[in-house]
Amino acid sequence: MFAPSSCSLAEPALAAHPAALLLRHAPSVAGAEARLRGVIADAVHHPGGLFRLRLVLAIGRAQTVDPEAAGQLAAAVEFFHTASLLFDDLPCMDDAAERRGRPCAHIEHGDAAALLGALAFINRGYALVAEATAVLPFHLRTQATRALDTHLGPAGLVGGQARDLAYAHGPRSPRAVGRAAQGKTVALLRLTLLLPALAGGSSEWELQLLHRLAVYWGQLYQGLDDLRDLRLAAATGSAKSDGRDLALSRPNLALAAGLDATRPRLSRLERLAARTLQELLACGRRWSVLLLFHRQLAAPLDEVLALR
Amino acid sequence: MFAPSSCSLAEPALAAHPAALLLRHAPSVAGAEARLRGVIADAVHHPGGLFRLRLVLAIGRAQTVDPEAAGQLAAAVEFFHTASLLFDDLPCMDDAAERRGRPCAHIEHGDAAALLGALAFINRGYALVAEATAVLPFHLRTQATRALDTHLGPAGLVGGQARDLAYAHGPRSPRAVGRAAQGKTVALLRLTLLLPALAGGSSEWELQLLHRLAVYWGQLYQGLDDLRDLRLAAATGSAKSDGRDLALSRPNLALAAGLDATRPRLSRLERLAARTLQELLACGRRWSVLLLFHRQLAAPLDEVLALR
Repeated sequence: MFAPSSCSLAEPALAAHPAALLLRHAPSVAGAEARLRGVIADAVHHPGGLFRLRLVLAIGRAQTVDPEAAGQLAAAVEFFHTASLLFDDLPCMDDAAERRGRPCAHIEHGDAAALLGALAFINRGYALVAEATAVLPFHLRTQATRALDTHLGPAGLVGGQARDLAYAHGPRSPRAVGRAAQGKTVALLRLTLLLPALAGGSSEWELQLLHRLAVYWGQLYQGLDDLRDLRLAAATGSAKSDGRDLALSRPNLALAAGLDATRPRLSRLERLAARTLQELLACGRRWSVLLLFHRQLAAPLDEVLALR
Repeated sequence: MFAPSSCSLAEPALAAHPAALLLRHAPSVAGAEARLRGVIADAVHHPGGLFRLRLVLAIGRAQTVDPEAAGQLAAAVEFFHTASLLFDDLPCMDDAAERRGRPCAHIEHGDAAALLGALAFINRGYALVAEATAVLPFHLRTQATRALDTHLGPAGLVGGQARDLAYAHGPRSPRAVGRAAQGKTVALLRLTLLLPALAGGSSEWELQLLHRLAVYWGQLYQGLDDLRDLRLAAATGSAKSDGRDLALSRPNLALAAGLDATRPRLSRLERLAARTLQELLACGRRWSVLLLFHRQLAAPLDEVLALR
């Protein structure tokens, strides 16, 4: 456990921590087929911003979760995210060529290896959650199991991706955009917030607030990403190729609602998230760890509003 | 628990049981996108022989596992199998057109929906195992977690499928065929045997024997399936299109070792499985439930040997 007094000393170690966690908990590839090994090695050696992983670690520290368990949960959530990106980039989904400035896994190692690599990350993710929660009381383990079942399945990540792909064939409304984001982005953020909170024994009220925060953060993040896709916020950089949403008829809030309606909507989401954070802080100062993540997530909003 | 005295009465109910379990534990598709819903509904309404599901139920009864938990484990193992078939049939894998006499899921609902449906089954499978094992003592839950991690990941099912696809580019030896089968077929049979055995508190020795049995059964099953693929045992019927192994350069024992070497090899596997079953029976008569499955699995062997 990282005691508050050791925070300053621990900082350099913590900075190095996240990527090391990916390597440490990665699927074991000893003796595995070469292309499968390639997909897994590339993914853990070239991670993205690790927002979700760092968020789990921060909540873990704030809630004094055993650091080994927090690291396992952090790697698990990041592995679920990694898998979703490997799938999203496949020809039958977004047919992307680049990710994080490098050729996509399926370009480099083939579609089948990318798919199997994603499955290896998913398998590892479930194992890590099971290990990290194994010592928790029955009712908390049950809650963690249900959270995975709900937020990764048809009501969550899998369902969101299906909506994302079907969007082209239905009404292109802000509501339909929001529903896809609810599955694609909100669901994984929910797991990111809930798993370490459950492991740390958060109260029912705190869990409710985290549920709500995931909605505001997820919808805000997705809305900002949609704007970025339209090159309206080109300077912020993007993980996906610009203009893809329009080309592929993917859900995009700015395209569905118009820019003038999108700006106040995103401002409102930011305010709702900030208010929820205040309610969490009223539960305990330890939740102040979330403020840094809120600032990071909402940072592109200033730029968007300045475009007015 | 199904008491022995109620067996005859329970038989009709049991016969109806397996398919009902699939429906009962299937991923929830309420409100899900139409194609995703279609993939999941088709898979649970048109199941295969349910060999693995019935095997889990039989071991569960023999080991007096709580029937609710046994049903969850049975559905979970069948869902992992279902997912592996959905993936295998995709254009980037075996590019199959038919499965169980019907168009494949990706033909009917699209590649992306088939892939997402498979993920929904996998997600549900992990949730069911977690629920079924939640009341077990810590060390048994840990063993179940490790079994899933090992037998579904790069050292198991995922790795076996990668080897299967890479086979065309390496030495086409009986050894390479065996390694692919070890991942593709043996790994899931291991889970099928081990999960209900763990839940029923089997001894360390019994678990070792089940590990061994999975190898003999898995290699025997795969070898017979390889022969079937070559139309040498056409009368037995096959889940996959005949001659596909040759066309796709997939591992096939009869192609790699020749028919004359394959026959005695399969006979030997059958004898080793039968001997392992006798060792299990020495541990307790309850293991006699496995004899029926052995006969079913080895049945095509007579025909193969008669071809001589």
